[in-house]
Amino acid sequence: MDDLLRIPVCTVADGHGPPPARDNGGMEHAIDLNADLGESYGAWRMGDDAAMFEVVSSANVACGFHAGDPLTMHRSARLAVRHGVVLGAHPGYRDRAGFGRRALDVSAEELAAEVVYQLGALAAVARAAGTEVRYVKAHGALYHRLGADRSAAAATAAALVAAAPGIVVLGPPESEFERAAAEAGIRYAREAFIDRGYLPDGRLVPRDHPDALVEDPMRAADRALELVETGGIAAADGARVELAPDSLCLHGDTPGSVGIARAVRAALAEAGHDVRPFA
Amino acid sequence: MDDLLRIPVCTVADGHGPPPARDNGGMEHAIDLNADLGESYGAWRMGDDAAMFEVVSSANVACGFHAGDPLTMHRSARLAVRHGVVLGAHPGYRDRAGFGRRALDVSAEELAAEVVYQLGALAAVARAAGTEVRYVKAHGALYHRLGADRSAAAATAAALVAAAPGIVVLGPPESEFERAAAEAGIRYAREAFIDRGYLPDGRLVPRDHPDALVEDPMRAADRALELVETGGIAAADGARVELAPDSLCLHGDTPGSVGIARAVRAALAEAGHDVRPFA
Amino acid sequence: MDDLLRIPVCTVADGHGPPPARDNGGMEHAIDLNADLGESYGAWRMGDDAAMFEVVSSANVACGFHAGDPLTMHRSARLAVRHGVVLGAHPGYRDRAGFGRRALDVSAEELAAEVVYQLGALAAVARAAGTEVRYVKAHGALYHRLGADRSAAAATAAALVAAAPGIVVLGPPESEFERAAAEAGIRYAREAFIDRGYLPDGRLVPRDHPDALVEDPMRAADRALELVETGGIAAADGARVELAPDSLCLHGDTPGSVGIARAVRAALAEAGHDVRPFA
Amino acid sequence: MDDLLRIPVCTVADGHGPPPARDNGGMEHAIDLNADLGESYGAWRMGDDAAMFEVVSSANVACGFHAGDPLTMHRSARLAVRHGVVLGAHPGYRDRAGFGRRALDVSAEELAAEVVYQLGALAAVARAAGTEVRYVKAHGALYHRLGADRSAAAATAAALVAAAPGIVVLGPPESEFERAAAEAGIRYAREAFIDRGYLPDGRLVPRDHPDALVEDPMRAADRALELVETGGIAAADGARVELAPDSLCLHGDTPGSVGIARAVRAALAEAGHDVRPFA
Repeated sequence: MDDLLRIPVCTVADGHGPPPARDNGGMEHAIDLNADLGESYGAWRMGDDAAMFEVVSSANVACGFHAGDPLTMHRSARLAVRHGVVLGAHPGYRDRAGFGRRALDVSAEELAAEVVYQLGALAAVARAAGTEVRYVKAHGALYHRLGADRSAAAATAAALVAAAPGIVVLGPPESEFERAAAEAGIRYAREAFIDRGYLPDGRLVPRDHPDALVEDPMRAADRALELVETGGIAAADGARVELAPDSLCLHGDTPGSVGIARAVRAALAEAGHDVRPFA
Repeated sequence: MDDLLRIPVCTVADGHGPPPARDNGGMEHAIDLNADLGESYGAWRMGDDAAMFEVVSSANVACGFHAGDPLTMHRSARLAVRHGVVLGAHPGYRDRAGFGRRALDVSAEELAAEVVYQLGALAAVARAAGTEVRYVKAHGALYHRLGADRSAAAATAAALVAAAPGIVVLGPPESEFERAAAEAGIRYAREAFIDRGYLPDGRLVPRDHPDALVEDPMRAADRALELVETGGIAAADGARVELAPDSLCLHGDTPGSVGIARAVRAALAEAGHDVRPFA
Repeated sequence: MDDLLRIPVCTVADGHGPPPARDNGGMEHAIDLNADLGESYGAWRMGDDAAMFEVVSSANVACGFHAGDPLTMHRSARLAVRHGVVLGAHPGYRDRAGFGRRALDVSAEELAAEVVYQLGALAAVARAAGTEVRYVKAHGALYHRLGADRSAAAATAAALVAAAPGIVVLGPPESEFERAAAEAGIRYAREAFIDRGYLPDGRLVPRDHPDALVEDPMRAADRALELVETGGIAAADGARVELAPDSLCLHGDTPGSVGIARAVRAALAEAGHDVRPFA
Repeated sequence: MDDLLRIPVCTVADGHGPPPARDNGGMEHAIDLNADLGESYGAWRMGDDAAMFEVVSSANVACGFHAGDPLTMHRSARLAVRHGVVLGAHPGYRDRAGFGRRALDVSAEELAAEVVYQLGALAAVARAAGTEVRYVKAHGALYHRLGADRSAAAATAAALVAAAPGIVVLGPPESEFERAAAEAGIRYAREAFIDRGYLPDGRLVPRDHPDALVEDPMRAADRALELVETGGIAAADGARVELAPDSLCLHGDTPGSVGIARAVRAALAEAGHDVRPFA
C-alpha cells in the first residue's frame, strides 16, 4: 500500500461528526487479518514470516514476479498448513527490481495473463503442500492500477473467473476492481488498513504527512477494534469514514510490524471477536 | 535435446541385425507428434508456432523460466484450442539467459517447487483460455538432469503427483524420471526423436558427428514410419534400437523444421496411421 | 521510437510552404547513419546485425537491460571494429519483458545510476574488443522520458559527465535531454527519422495513421537526401519541419529494414554525401 | 566462500609441527581487510554495509548479476569515498535466484564477457561517484570455477587485462586464476579467511564440520594476528598452512560479522599493524 491509493469511499453525511459509540455491548464480530507474506527472494529475507503466520488468518503470498520464488512459496504454503491460515495469491507487476511498487505500463491483456499465471503458480505449489489458494489480492502499484483502471480491472476479473471459478478478490472498498469483479460474478472482499491514517474521503493519508502511519501497537489495536465494531474509522480530521471491511490489513515487513500484529490479535481476542478467514 | 543425453535403452540381442520388416501390412497405428512451442519471449520470436500447431498433436509449451511468458503462453493455449492440440507444460531451469540449456546446480527440493510452479502457471493460463494441461515434459538441461539424477527425479515426481493428480510425464525411455514416475504412480510416456541419429545403445549421436541430424524431410518421414511401425530405429551402425515410443518429437525452431514436420505428418497420414495425443 | 514522442521542434513561419529546393548543387554533406543493434538476447535473435553493421556509421548497442547481454555486446563490438563503426551505448529501462518500450516509474536518481551502469558495461566490453564507446542514445520509453522529464534528464546528464567526460549524447531535437546536456557541458547530437512521417510541429505521425511509416526503400532514400541536403523534411501536410540532424536513424529490426538501409546508403553515396560518424 | 573450495596450497614439510612463534617482536605489518559488500538488491537488504565500510580497507562490491543493482552500487561507491575504502568489482554468475552460489555451466567465452561487463558497470558507477575500481574478486561459485577451471580463468584474465590494464585480481593462493593472471601480466593478490578453518592441505574445512566456522570475535582476532604476523595459520589438526595473504577476508552478512570485523580491526591496530588497501 502506498500513497498512490486514491480510491474514494462513502463517508457519513455530515462528514465531521464524532464516531458512533462502539457497539460491542455483547456483540461479537468475526474479522479477518491479512498480511503480505512470502516476500523473501532467494538469499534475501523480508519480514518475519514465522511470527506473522501465527497471527494472521489470511496470508497474501507473493508469486515470484515482484517478490517470492517457488521455494519461498512452498515454505509459505507449509506455514499456512501448519497454522491453519488461508492462502491468497499476491500477484504484482513483473518488476522485481522495483518490488512491484512502480507504475509499469503493461497492457490490460498482458496484465490479465500475468495475474492468472501467478495465481496458477501459487495454486499448484499450494496443492503440492496440501492446501489451496482461495483469493487474490494485488500488490503495490498493481493494487492501485486495478483499483483505478477500468479496462485492466475488467480484463483481469474476466481472466480470473475463467481460470479459477470460485476465487475471491480482496481489495479496497469502492474500486474499479470491485465493480469489475461484480460484473464477472466474483465475490469481492474489502479490506481496511489498521496502521494507515485515512482522509475524510476515504483515501489514505500520504506517507509524508504526520498522521500517515500508526506505529504504536496500542493505538493500532484500538483502531482495529473501532474498525471491527463500527465498520469505519475516524479520519485525520475527526470525520468518520465508512469502510465495512471484511479483512484488516497488517504489515509484515516494517520494524515494529510483529508487535503491532500481536497487539491487534490480542485486543480482538480480549474483546471476544473471532479472527477467521474471510474466504 | 542435446548431446548430454546419456540414457541407455534396451537393444535387440545381437545388436547388429537388420531392422525387422515393417508390420504395416494392414496394421494402422496411433502415434503422437510433439514439439517444443511457445518459446518466444516478449519482443523476441522463436520458431513458427502458427505452422507447427497445425502439425502436432501435443505442444510442449514453455512456462516463463527458460522461455515463454504469460502472454505467449496465453497465445499458445488459444492456438491449442483452435487446432485441437493437447497442451503439455515444458518447464526448464530458471535460466532465461541460457535458454535452460546449461547445467545449473539447483537443489532437488527447489527443483521440485520450480517444476510445480511452472506447471501450475500454465495450467491456469490454459484454463483461462478454455483448455487444460495434461502432461509435463522437461526442457533442455533439466530434461537431462531428470533423466539421470534419481533424487531430483523422485522429488519432482512426488511434487507433481501431489500438485496435479492424473498428470502424465513425457520423457526418454528408461530414464530415472521414468522410474520415479512409476514409483509415484504417474503415467510415463516415451518419446523418440525423428531428426536425431541414435547410437546402438540408445543414446543420441553427438551433434558434432555427421549422423547426428536428419535434415532431409523425406528421410525424416521414413524414420517416423519406421518408428511407428516397428517401435524402433536403425542406429548409425545398423544395429536396431528399441524405443517403443508413445510420441515422436519434432523440432520447431530450426530452419527446416516446419518442412520436416509437414512431411512427417503427411507420410503418417498416407500410411493410414492416426496422429493423436498420447495424453 | 514510438508514438509517445511528443517533442516540439521549430518549424518555418508559415508552416505550409513548399520545401526549399535541395541545395546539393555542388554541395556535399557529411551525415551519420545510426541504428539500434545488438538487440538479440541469449538464444533469441533480433534483426540482421551482420547486414546492418555494413551500412551504418554508428551503432546504438543495447546494454543488457531491455535487450542484449554481455556476449551479444562483445560480438557487436567486434563487428564495429571490423566495419569501422562507432559504438554508442543504448541504455533502456530495466524491463526485458517489455523490451524497454513501457513507461516505468523509476526515480531520477536510480535512472541516472542505471544509465551510467549500462554505459560502463558496454565501455568495458568494447575496450576488451579493442574499441570504445563514444556516445549514448537512450532506448524506447527511456528515450521519451529523457526527452520530456527535466529532472530525469538533469540527473542523467550530470551522472554521465561525471562517469565519462567527453561522452556525446544522441537524441531528438529540442528535448529536455538536449537542455540538460548543454547545462552539464555535454555535446548533444540530433537525429532525424528516415522512415517515420513527421507532423508539422515536429512530432512523429502516430503509428496507427497511414503516413506513419515509410516502407518503400526509394522513398526512404529520397527522404534521407532531403534531410541531408535541406536539414528538414516535409510534414504529412506539406509543412516543412526543420530538424538540422547530425545523424539519421535507420531501423534494423523490421522486415524491410536492411533493404531501406542499403537504399539510403547507396543514395547518399551517389549524391556525393559522406557517411561518417558524428561522434 | 563455501565448501567447494578445493585449492591446494603449500604446507610445511612435516605438516604437523607447531606454528612458528609470532614474529611481531617489534615488526609491524601492513594488511588489507576485504569484505563482500553491496549485496542488497532493490527492496531487499543484506548485511550491515554502513558498519562494515567503517572497518574494511577494500570492499568487494556486487555488480548486479548475483546481487546488487545500479543504485546499491552507487551507494556503495559513495560509502567507499566517505570512508577511504578501495573498491573492487565482485562479479558473479548471472544467477540472482541462487545468489551466484550454484554452479552454472557458462562457456568460457561468455564468462569472460560477463566479468568484463560487471567490472565496467561498477567502474562507471564508481567514477560518477568520484572514485574508481582497482581490483576484481569473483563471487561464490564463480570464485571456485576460476580457481579450478584453466580455460575459464585464462579467458577471463585475457579479457580483464584488455578491458582494464592495471586491474588487480584478488583470489585464493595457488589457483588457476593466479596462474592465468600471471600469464596475462595481471597482478594477483592472495586472500585468507579469518573465520573459516583450514585443512592441512590448505582447503577450507567443510561447513558441516565442527571446526568450519570461527564465530568468536576474540578467536577471530587471534587468527587475524597469526595470519598477519606469520603468513600462515594452524590447520584443524595443528599442521601449519602457509598462505602469505595480501588481504584477509571478513564476512559481512552473518549475524556476528560486524562484531568479528570490529574485533579484528581493533586487534590489528593494538598490535601496531597497518590496515591498508592492497590495491
